[in-house]
Amino acid sequence: MPENTERTDTLPHSGYKIIQNPQKFCYGIDAVLLADYAKASLKAGSEVFDLGTGTGIIPLLLHAEYPEAHFTALEIQPESADMAKRSMELNSLETSINVLEKDIKSVPDEFPKACANLVTSNPPYMPNLHGKQNPDDCKAIARHEVLCTLEDVIKAASHLLKPTGSFVMIHRPLRLSEIFILLSKYGLEPKTMRLVQPHQNEAPNMVLIKAVKGANPELKIDAPLIVREQNGEYTAQVKEIYGITD
Amino acid sequence: MPENTERTDTLPHSGYKIIQNPQKFCYGIDAVLLADYAKASLKAGSEVFDLGTGTGIIPLLLHAEYPEAHFTALEIQPESADMAKRSMELNSLETSINVLEKDIKSVPDEFPKACANLVTSNPPYMPNLHGKQNPDDCKAIARHEVLCTLEDVIKAASHLLKPTGSFVMIHRPLRLSEIFILLSKYGLEPKTMRLVQPHQNEAPNMVLIKAVKGANPELKIDAPLIVREQNGEYTAQVKEIYGITD
Repeated sequence: MPENTERTDTLPHSGYKIIQNPQKFCYGIDAVLLADYAKASLKAGSEVFDLGTGTGIIPLLLHAEYPEAHFTALEIQPESADMAKRSMELNSLETSINVLEKDIKSVPDEFPKACANLVTSNPPYMPNLHGKQNPDDCKAIARHEVLCTLEDVIKAASHLLKPTGSFVMIHRPLRLSEIFILLSKYGLEPKTMRLVQPHQNEAPNMVLIKAVKGANPELKIDAPLIVREQNGEYTAQVKEIYGITD
Repeated sequence: MPENTERTDTLPHSGYKIIQNPQKFCYGIDAVLLADYAKASLKAGSEVFDLGTGTGIIPLLLHAEYPEAHFTALEIQPESADMAKRSMELNSLETSINVLEKDIKSVPDEFPKACANLVTSNPPYMPNLHGKQNPDDCKAIARHEVLCTLEDVIKAASHLLKPTGSFVMIHRPLRLSEIFILLSKYGLEPKTMRLVQPHQNEAPNMVLIKAVKGANPELKIDAPLIVREQNGEYTAQVKEIYGITD
């Protein structure tokens, strides 16, 4: 089923297969950490949306935790959406994980309000400064806000979520203030947050956030997640998330 | 000069004296960390305001770093303001550190706009839920928003600051979203932030924030400050801040 320059990788824990194209975009640690952070908000029977799913890594990792949940995975890029669809077929998951080639900006028009228990997103981190990015470049679209902004993602999440439903996102710490302001604008209250540090004494380079629709303000910031020991090895926590056994 | 139940303590680094009353309120580690975090924003000739100065600990610690700066320290509680004034006299600092018994809410009416290079505040951390706090209780006023809210503090800071001037505050992580939303409302952009953890693997219980008047958005989150080693001793970083030599 993989085509031309594609390859098939096996995911930890579940053994599910994912089709990726190393010349375009492969999932990174951020997707793995996001899925791990989101899983506490999953229940059997949850309706879950993943906004900007890429090759479908987040729903694949979450489905492994809760096979009884149902997933809708939106991806604007035809090539990525096609790979994601083929991955779901490869795992016989196409009824549980519905991949749709769709623009996040169309969500408020195309989906009913308050239909989701959980929305996840690993959105582009970087603003599309001066429109310099090539709109046909897959990597640029995944990394820069070429086709959707942070506000588009948060607006769509708020539209989809039921009251008390959760929005779980990973992003860059440098945009934290903007993230909180936009979450508040769309009625999503940040409830938990975890910073991710490459090493023990280094500044964080990622932030995991869970916001709850219509909740009262009060943010619990967890101890940071440290990715690597000083010797370069993954920490025990990250090994567990990746399913690495020594 | 100390009266009845008061005592006089000596500050690290400078040797300045501070009059405190252990039956009312003594400064804690938050004031020491705040002064340390704020000192990078000080210059010779800076006009500095400390909002809710208590016994004047923040300007005393900062003056030791930059004796050429000028400080205005506002305190609403007559007893604390009086102790702060007597401390400044004790150190012959009354011309450098002007203690005023004033309500932070009066700042926009009583001080000119854009007169300060730096504003610091160690405000009450907890909301005044249901007005349950005793309005005559010094400790309650220092800890709960009995006489002023977070918004009053941020509004006053914004009024006082010149363009590109800095507001440096310490607060509780659980109010981080509200802090960012209010800073943005009053034109103060959070530029650096540091979480303070009691120990290495514990959740942070304090957050240091520097916001800059009229700056562009982009937040640099530093590595967290860890207060104590696992054996209970202060870490090297905190020892240095406190001026503790082994």
